Formats: sequence, structure tokens, C-alpha cells
Amino acid sequence: MHVLPPYERILVLTEGHLGVFSSKTAACLLRYRGQDVVGVIDSVAAGTDVRTAISWAPPVPVFANVAAATGSQPQALFIGIAPVGGALPPQMRQHVRDALQAGIDVVSGLHAYLSDDEEFVKAARQSGARLFDLRRPPTPGVIAGGRARGTRCRRVLTVGTDGNVGKMVTAFELKRAAQQRGLDARLAATGQTGIMIEGCGIVVDAMVADFAAGAAEQVVLDIGDCELGIIEGQGSIAHPGYSGVTLALLHGACPDAMILVHHAGRTRYKAEPHDPIPPLGRLCAAYEQAASLLHPARVVAVAINGFDVEERLVQAEMRRIERELKVPVADPITPDVQRLLAAVAE
Amino acid sequence: MHVLPPYERILVLTEGHLGVFSSKTAACLLRYRGQDVVGVIDSVAAGTDVRTAISWAPPVPVFANVAAATGSQPQALFIGIAPVGGALPPQMRQHVRDALQAGIDVVSGLHAYLSDDEEFVKAARQSGARLFDLRRPPTPGVIAGGRARGTRCRRVLTVGTDGNVGKMVTAFELKRAAQQRGLDARLAATGQTGIMIEGCGIVVDAMVADFAAGAAEQVVLDIGDCELGIIEGQGSIAHPGYSGVTLALLHGACPDAMILVHHAGRTRYKAEPHDPIPPLGRLCAAYEQAASLLHPARVVAVAINGFDVEERLVQAEMRRIERELKVPVADPITPDVQRLLAAVAE
Repeated sequence: MHVLPPYERILVLTEGHLGVFSSKTAACLLRYRGQDVVGVIDSVAAGTDVRTAISWAPPVPVFANVAAATGSQPQALFIGIAPVGGALPPQMRQHVRDALQAGIDVVSGLHAYLSDDEEFVKAARQSGARLFDLRRPPTPGVIAGGRARGTRCRRVLTVGTDGNVGKMVTAFELKRAAQQRGLDARLAATGQTGIMIEGCGIVVDAMVADFAAGAAEQVVLDIGDCELGIIEGQGSIAHPGYSGVTLALLHGACPDAMILVHHAGRTRYKAEPHDPIPPLGRLCAAYEQAASLLHPARVVAVAINGFDVEERLVQAEMRRIERELKVPVADPITPDVQRLLAAVAE
Repeated sequence: MHVLPPYERILVLTEGHLGVFSSKTAACLLRYRGQDVVGVIDSVAAGTDVRTAISWAPPVPVFANVAAATGSQPQALFIGIAPVGGALPPQMRQHVRDALQAGIDVVSGLHAYLSDDEEFVKAARQSGARLFDLRRPPTPGVIAGGRARGTRCRRVLTVGTDGNVGKMVTAFELKRAAQQRGLDARLAATGQTGIMIEGCGIVVDAMVADFAAGAAEQVVLDIGDCELGIIEGQGSIAHPGYSGVTLALLHGACPDAMILVHHAGRTRYKAEPHDPIPPLGRLCAAYEQAASLLHPARVVAVAINGFDVEERLVQAEMRRIERELKVPVADPITPDVQRLLAAVAE
């Protein structure tokens, strides 16, 4: 499992991409780990108010380069974007190099490993800075054996109607709400952004298929000694490409309860637009049947992502789903997240 | 996808392990590709009748080493065992080296890649011999998109109640029976032994999890222009460790029909003996529900593996299952394989 040092002074690199969706990784870091961020590195947005681009960000400076940020005594530079194709954009190279040369650790969730890049490896070796590629699978892999069933905590898994619907956001909002109520809640991160926020985890979909369930099992065992264990789901059980990852995670985590996460109004898979998403009731049944093969679990609530959908349509859909599925339905980035928490804590 | 040259003169390396179970890979090669085998390399069994160890083998010589086999003009040496731990046993190194130095290709299904071994790579480079590591994932990976649904052939997938129950054997027996009846039947190989027999395929469980379904899709597309496409399954949908691989393969292959494969009398997972295998009816339902999310398919027959079980108990179990599930039940290595063929061809 990847375990990052407990950084308290992080620079987030967006270089020309600062924005809620253009730098989604950065936006999530600023939202869920803002207290540990001391600045953003972006020569295009340098000097502007970061909250113009990302409204919920803490008021940290946007620096033009790493040298300008020295006064903040940064410990690490996190790559704040997830570019199509998975490689480091050329204009980011100088910042990564500058950080490493200055002895600042670099943390990356990119598909293309920075630790395969000779220039970066050499700079890191010379300064002693560490280079973390979060998508690199930890070795050796483990074959899952249903061991998550033995953890003390109540295990809740976010499951999706598609990829990229808000499973991670739902998990973090739920954890925050639970901790605010005094619950000992922990989060098992299964994607690179989640790991950047939590500080530890394994990227399940980057594992060799035989070991994907084992990776999920390991992250759950790691948090198992708490009251409420919230597990970040991946993919969707009916997705033509990713369903195997979804089931590996489900059977590795053996949740006691699930929250179905849905993007209001989405009827076709984002990556496969010719394929319709099954009705939500059917997906709930599929998740429950799959879970029951190892450890019974119900879908106890639905989290709705209202991004880019008219508010009244979101409300109408939420009421429709609640009538149909007879479970609480709520937008997790609103105070209604309490309804999701109440549903999982039962 | 791995595509091997169409070898007609293969040496099978067992070196001290010749036997139906001690060299299962070799035993399958001798059974399903015996016409292309010119000898076995095994210094311990050298000079003996190979059929003493493997009754169905063609009467090929057992040579002490590669040099002794030169007269057969071998084109390739196939590693005929799957050792625990996945590395090449030390006593096999000389044979691999000898083959490569003699310009003979080497084909391996081991977890530890021979092409990571400097000595072997150097020998291969010097002679021009090729080194195939079948478990090395082809790159780039592909995300499945349900494209297998567009193939012309009728797609049949062998699905298991556990790993290691006989899904591959069932697939090859079915293909043989179909071809004997004049059907244009092809097999999509998804494991290293299947690829050695067929000459092409992808090891699905060795793919990064995101690409496992895509690998299954690719092998099915490759055979799609036939009458009967038989797809080798992997794992089991309720296996704590491997279910994700099983679902990836199911959704990548989008079969029209499934054959459930079961080892008579097995009630617990071989690798997880504390976990009970669900009742067969429950597993059939799970497979059919999972398939229906993308492309409906029924379990049309059950193949029973009777290894190491008293014949009368096997027969009793077969009758019991047939009564319960109301589909034909047969042992695929007997002439009753025709009943399985009849069930899938409907």
C-alpha cells in the first residue's frame, strides 16, 4: 500500500489548467485537504485569487513557479491534474524538476510514471527528494480471501451507476459529516486522488486483475479498526469495460451497506455513449446480488450529483428515485449529506 | 494479442516433472496439440514411454536434453509446467539456454518472464531465436465496450464454480467435438496453456484490471467470424479473490450461452477452503444476472469434472444436478460431450 508522509505544506501543480474541471485533482485537494495546502503552482494564473477559479479553495497564493513558493517551506508538490493520455504535460516538467532539485517530494497520480523518467530520478537521487507514483501497484499483490468481513468497523461502499459520477466525493463528504458528529470514521482510498487526500491507499484499477480484489481488501483491513469505514468505489457493475474492477472492489471490501451514486439525468455511459445505463432499481439489485455471494449488503441510500443539471430537474429526479427505491436520496455536497449518514449508520 | 508462429515441431520441457498433474501444461499440450509435438525434454524420464506417465500422449520420444532432439528439427521449446511461485526451476535453465543457443524459439507461460533474464535475452539475440512470455500483457490495453456482441458467431463461455475445475478442458473438448461434426468452431484462449494450444490469445488475469475485459473482447473479436466461438473462462463469479476477473471476462466476451463447469463433490474453494461454494443453482442465477446487464445468456449445460472422485459418486452427482437445474449434465472428456454440444448449438 502507498503511504505518504504526513505532509502539512503541500504545493499543488496545475500549470495552465487551474479550474474546477480542468484541474479536478487540485480542486479535490483544495476541498478535502485544504488545510495542508500552502500554494498552487500555475504561471498562467499566478498572482490571481485561487477562489476565482475554485470557489471553495482556502485563500492560498498562486505562485508562478516553485522558487517563488520557497517562503512557504513546501514539503511536497502534488500533480494537480489528470491529463488525457496520462503523461506529464511538457510545460509541467520544469516545475517537477525544480521541486526535486530543491529537495521537495513530488507526488503523482499519472499513468505515466515519473519514476521511469531518468531526469527526474537523477534529480531526486541527488537531492534526496522522494518521487511517488501512486498508480504504480504495490508489490507483491495479494489474492483476496474475504478477510474484510472480519473488521470491527461498519463498512460502507460507494457504488456507481457509471464511472466519474461522484463516488469519491460522496465518500469524502460522508466522512466529513461523520467526523463532525464525533464518529470515528475513516476512508479507504482506491484511486489516485483519494490517496493524495487521505495520504494512503492503493489504486485498485491499476493492479493486475488477479490482485485487484486483494488490494481493496488490504485498504479496508488498514482502516478496519474504526467505527465507520467508508470505501471509495470504482467503475460500475454494468459498465462494459470496468465492471470487473467494480466487482473486485466489492468482493475485496465486503461492505455491510452501499450508497448508490448517480449523476442526475445521465442515461448513457460517459465513455460508451451507445450503451444505456440500466434502470437504477436494476443496478441496486445487481449490486445486492453480487454482494450477497460473499457478504449481504443493501443499497441504503442514493447520492445524487447535480453537476450541470438545472436545480429543479435535480430535485424532481431525487424525488422520483426516492419514491421508486424507497431509500433516502440526497446531494452529498449539501447539508442533506446528514440523511446519507443517518442511512448508513443504522 | 500474442500470436505464436504456427509451429509443427514442438519440444515440451518437463525436466523431472513429467506426469498428468505434475506437468499439467505438458499433459494438455499432448492431448490437444499432440500432432505438433515431436518430443518431451526430461532427463529423469528420458528413454521411457511417455504414455506411461500421460496415457493419451502420442508416442513421441522423451529426450534427455535438447541436443538429443536435434534430429526432430524442433522449431520451439514450450515450458510444460506451471510451478508454484511462477519461476523457472533451476534444473530447467540449461534446456532453455540450449534451445535458444540452437536457434530454437522458447515459449513460456510462467509468471516470471524469461525475457527479463539477461542470460536468455542475450542467447536469443545472438541466435535469432524468439522468446515468448505469454503472461506478459500486450500493450496498449483496450477498454471493452461490448463490441463482442457484434460478432457473427454464436458465443459460448465456460464458467466455473471455482478456479481450476476444468473450464479450459471443457472448452477444448467442446471445440474438438464441434469440429468433428463439421462445425466451424474456434476457441478464444484466455490463459497461458490455452494460448500454447491454440497459438494465440491473451492471458486475461495478467492484464491491468482496467483492461481485463478489453482483452477478453479482443480475443473474441479475433475469432468472431466463425460459426461457434468457444471462450475459455477464468475464475468464478463468487470467488473471493478472482470474481472480478470472471466478470471482466464475462462482460468482455458477451456470450450467448454458458456452460457451468464443476468438480464433482467440491464444496469449498480450493484456494480458500474456509469459504463454501454457493449452491450451483445460485451460481447459475448469478452468472445469468451478471450477463443480462449487457447481453442475456443462459447456462445451457453443466460439465462435470470427475477427477479423483469415485465413478458412482460422479454419476449420482450428475443426475442430481440434472434434476435440479434441468439442463444436460455431462463429463466433457467422455463421448457425452455431444450432449454439451447439442445444448450450446441450439
